Amino acid sequence: MTVPLHFAVKTRLMELLDRLGEGAALPPERTLAKEFEVSRWTMRQAIRELTADGRLRARQGQGTFVATPKLIQPLALVSYTEALRAQGQVPGREVVRFDEVVADAVLAEKLGIAEGAPAYELERILFADEQPIGLETTYLAVSRFPTLREVLLPTGSLYRCLTDDLGVRFGEGEEIVETVMATPREAELLKATQSLPMLLLHRTSRDTDGKPIEAVRSLYRGDRVGFRATLRP
Amino acid sequence: MTVPLHFAVKTRLMELLDRLGEGAALPPERTLAKEFEVSRWTMRQAIRELTADGRLRARQGQGTFVATPKLIQPLALVSYTEALRAQGQVPGREVVRFDEVVADAVLAEKLGIAEGAPAYELERILFADEQPIGLETTYLAVSRFPTLREVLLPTGSLYRCLTDDLGVRFGEGEEIVETVMATPREAELLKATQSLPMLLLHRTSRDTDGKPIEAVRSLYRGDRVGFRATLRP
Repeated sequence: MTVPLHFAVKTRLMELLDRLGEGAALPPERTLAKEFEVSRWTMRQAIRELTADGRLRARQGQGTFVATPKLIQPLALVSYTEALRAQGQVPGREVVRFDEVVADAVLAEKLGIAEGAPAYELERILFADEQPIGLETTYLAVSRFPTLREVLLPTGSLYRCLTDDLGVRFGEGEEIVETVMATPREAELLKATQSLPMLLLHRTSRDTDGKPIEAVRSLYRGDRVGFRATLRP
Repeated sequence: MTVPLHFAVKTRLMELLDRLGEGAALPPERTLAKEFEVSRWTMRQAIRELTADGRLRARQGQGTFVATPKLIQPLALVSYTEALRAQGQVPGREVVRFDEVVADAVLAEKLGIAEGAPAYELERILFADEQPIGLETTYLAVSRFPTLREVLLPTGSLYRCLTDDLGVRFGEGEEIVETVMATPREAELLKATQSLPMLLLHRTSRDTDGKPIEAVRSLYRGDRVGFRATLRP
């Protein structure tokens, strides 16, 4: 097997990152290329892959830095806010849109409503310590939560609003996890400087009576986030 | 926002894939570039992204085809063999190596053994319908399973061997899921034609008495596999 040159460089760079330590600035591409005796193109490839893997982080106009470890989120029916706080991070949210849409057959089935019935479509950017890490689109039946627009604070926790203000009791849910490339719109909203691999999650959840609560599509930066599941036989 | 040209082409190509249907051959890059009035480089970019997303699949020497949907595996302490059969697929395995290694501090802690104690390192390629979809490396304490080499069939189910032959009862486990780029060695073992985004899983599991069973690192082709988790509050 022939190892591509940029991969050999990537391996050497990883040793350098370990020596530099978290948060340290990476020397300029030009300097590194010279030191490693490779072309700038090869060095750029290695740096791109380490960025996609989450070992390096590019900050616009500031250069490239040794990244902190990925944020590991629980795969559970818990609030993003609480999960993030439990890891010592400051959670944040920004509403991109909060519309009503007409449920197609697939969405209607997930929400337990008739095809053509109205559903909320709430799209929010999720932040951790002011960095955008995810883009979440939640669908809920308007008929089930007619007062949602009045009670949900734009930057507040949806799960807390559902449980505390609307009396919902979460029962069980299902989540599919896969990896995809971000669309340009998604990359822009998440301030990704390149087409990064993302973690795409599709969730449906039900209350303790088995009634559907929500259908969620969330996209997380693959270089910043991982998930933890509890396994049973 | 400006949409890169290859992305606009990707969107149009997706409509074409829907019309062509699963398993259909994609027309040659040259033909498509002409039809879409874009450069071959742009068309190649669009095809690469659709391949990484799992919508297209390249078969060596045969061209590119509309892919079948991803295989969704359960995030649970179940046998790969059983999970795959439940989806109507034929499971397969190939042992890459089955060695004994000296446990470092991290591995020793996971397996509940002393640092420096011997551990099995079992690396296997996982197949679904004869296509390689994952690369799994399992670590087990030699002291706990001294007869493993005698009872485990190279192409058999490890979980079935542990439960049926060695009397292990699986209790609970933990799995971390993230996305990474494959190394050249991993890409080659998984017959990936390019540096695809992969799903990387780190598992530890314990028996019903809370004693560690295994530590596992598995890498799955992101274009072929997704995972399903059951969520609880």
